Amino acid sequence: MSGVISFLTDFGLDDSYVGEMKARILGLAPSARLVDLTHAVPAGDVAAGAFLLSRAWSAFPTGTVHLAVVDPGVGTERAALAVHAEGHWFVGPDNGLLSMAAGQPDHIWRLEPDLVAGEGALSATFHGRDLFAPAAARLCLGDEVAQFANPALSMNGLEPVVEVVEDRVIGEVLWVDHFGNAITAIDEASVRAVGPELQIRVGSLRLHGLHRTFGDVESLTPLAYIGSGGTLELAVRDGDLRERFGVDRGARVEVRAGGNR
Amino acid sequence: MSGVISFLTDFGLDDSYVGEMKARILGLAPSARLVDLTHAVPAGDVAAGAFLLSRAWSAFPTGTVHLAVVDPGVGTERAALAVHAEGHWFVGPDNGLLSMAAGQPDHIWRLEPDLVAGEGALSATFHGRDLFAPAAARLCLGDEVAQFANPALSMNGLEPVVEVVEDRVIGEVLWVDHFGNAITAIDEASVRAVGPELQIRVGSLRLHGLHRTFGDVESLTPLAYIGSGGTLELAVRDGDLRERFGVDRGARVEVRAGGNR
Amino acid sequence: MSGVISFLTDFGLDDSYVGEMKARILGLAPSARLVDLTHAVPAGDVAAGAFLLSRAWSAFPTGTVHLAVVDPGVGTERAALAVHAEGHWFVGPDNGLLSMAAGQPDHIWRLEPDLVAGEGALSATFHGRDLFAPAAARLCLGDEVAQFANPALSMNGLEPVVEVVEDRVIGEVLWVDHFGNAITAIDEASVRAVGPELQIRVGSLRLHGLHRTFGDVESLTPLAYIGSGGTLELAVRDGDLRERFGVDRGARVEVRAGGNR
Repeated sequence: MSGVISFLTDFGLDDSYVGEMKARILGLAPSARLVDLTHAVPAGDVAAGAFLLSRAWSAFPTGTVHLAVVDPGVGTERAALAVHAEGHWFVGPDNGLLSMAAGQPDHIWRLEPDLVAGEGALSATFHGRDLFAPAAARLCLGDEVAQFANPALSMNGLEPVVEVVEDRVIGEVLWVDHFGNAITAIDEASVRAVGPELQIRVGSLRLHGLHRTFGDVESLTPLAYIGSGGTLELAVRDGDLRERFGVDRGARVEVRAGGNR
Repeated sequence: MSGVISFLTDFGLDDSYVGEMKARILGLAPSARLVDLTHAVPAGDVAAGAFLLSRAWSAFPTGTVHLAVVDPGVGTERAALAVHAEGHWFVGPDNGLLSMAAGQPDHIWRLEPDLVAGEGALSATFHGRDLFAPAAARLCLGDEVAQFANPALSMNGLEPVVEVVEDRVIGEVLWVDHFGNAITAIDEASVRAVGPELQIRVGSLRLHGLHRTFGDVESLTPLAYIGSGGTLELAVRDGDLRERFGVDRGARVEVRAGGNR
Repeated sequence: MSGVISFLTDFGLDDSYVGEMKARILGLAPSARLVDLTHAVPAGDVAAGAFLLSRAWSAFPTGTVHLAVVDPGVGTERAALAVHAEGHWFVGPDNGLLSMAAGQPDHIWRLEPDLVAGEGALSATFHGRDLFAPAAARLCLGDEVAQFANPALSMNGLEPVVEVVEDRVIGEVLWVDHFGNAITAIDEASVRAVGPELQIRVGSLRLHGLHRTFGDVESLTPLAYIGSGGTLELAVRDGDLRERFGVDRGARVEVRAGGNR
């Protein structure tokens, strides 16, 4: 284990909820290193959480435990998972949140609340603190997962669709970041496969070819490039693409062959 | 001591103030573990800070130092406190901020600025950095509190009122969280004492009985339940109670006997 | 080295970018202590970042590495720096961001991306994660800077102008904080040099003399004082100066001799 636990939730930072989760962890694993990924996932938006986790987890050292809680079904029969994939652990509800990051799991475990946290320790509305946090702490300490979970065969998935139609690749905008840059689901290989000359379309915007970085175009000019997460991104240099061109999450982006004709 | 220091302020995260406090602490106590509770207490809102601290402190390990700064009276003659209660330390101004969390103190100490921070080290407007942070660091290190504080007999209080009128319990909404859930001052025992069949009223909203969790009602339906902090809460499943029903902080909530008549 | 790394960026906390930087650091320097200064620098606003860093760095222990990324020129030919000043390290782009904090550098080094991060490890759009974070981690570990950087003779500067015109001192508002308090560039010595009786002007607001702290005036009254950063500040007690008097960043503040005539 790396001793690192990453956090991703839709709890925001205005309440004490994130602090309570961390408190619980430090009580069990006093030397855990706690790193926030983000707590600004829109409330209940499992797809946004899944995307942000999928983008960030691989920057962490092997043996990191990723604790992810976007859990509108808290208190219902939805399962609680610990998933091992590519040397990392992922802990969270079985609603698709973990599936983009841990898409090729070695092992899937279903947490047993009474074994994780002790009988009766579970509130009905805050499993982040009472179930997922202690499970993450115990994994971080190196406890055997079989002490508090049972093997499972599958988990719920949530995979963004990227379609290849004839010579075109079509995928959606998964996230618009703080700068107004739009991050798509279309990976670099799919973009390159279309050909050396590209036209990129979203809404009424037409972009010709990929640039390497913002500085390659004039200020306030839109551009397309392969982002630091390895997928196609769209941005306006020194500006905000969402604001300027109305490109938001879910927008359909099409990459097709063709020069600046 | 647990080596953990929790932080609660109204400083927000846009300025460098929270970072400056942490810097000061790490200079004195390099191995302290720093955990943010929240820095989003509304500016100068002592009651909101008192509530958030009261809700979160007990999740931390025994021996934690809770550093709380919502201090509109900074630089005036208001006292600065270190309070010991139930195995935890609470450090902050004597304006009621600590009183809901440390309601049954073992010891109350009044910080002596010159002894905490050295003579002349105190700015007139930033005691969070110059007084409270070093006091918390020294407590975290295990320094004797008597080295930098004098015993005090009492502190200012701020306790939410819960009234029992005949067969009804009346209390206010202390906080509305990020999801729009309203957290009241009415503890579980007081709710249960009303009887097996309950009617809950706030504004024009009438709720019948308690539910266990969000999943027990249909989506977009309001419900009442005992929250993870142990008091009555009101929410809308997959929705925002504040937005939908105008229930905000300070709203009067009444619990009375009675079924769905 | 203190083992502490401070962070200042314009990345916000909604995306996973800050978490990715920290992940990279913990992979290289597992015992580094990470402290956020702020991630709320307005997007691309180098001057705001320079101010916030200049205000906060000295609260940290000697040997701290300050990692600052406000980098609209990412991917262009702008240099990447590691600057040593007054026992601290400052790491960031050469666009003026470091110049207010590290104004009197002992040494300036220009980072060599291939030596910092390994050949080909550098994305074109996220040097915070791929270049500046690993450089900060290596400095924190005590690696010799000459292993991954070359000496440089100068860096780009960005110094707020404070003018002395006859008996007046004129400077601008560098930052308005979360409380609406306006922090100017005019240091205490310059204010005191004007004389014992002062008039302070900004927009249509006239203030007479300095106060020590908020409690020295009535509630909702404007006042001037020397702030905890050592420069002239303007505020409204229990209120918001920006909102009440329209004083914002860049506003021209004049201090002149003269009593309450």
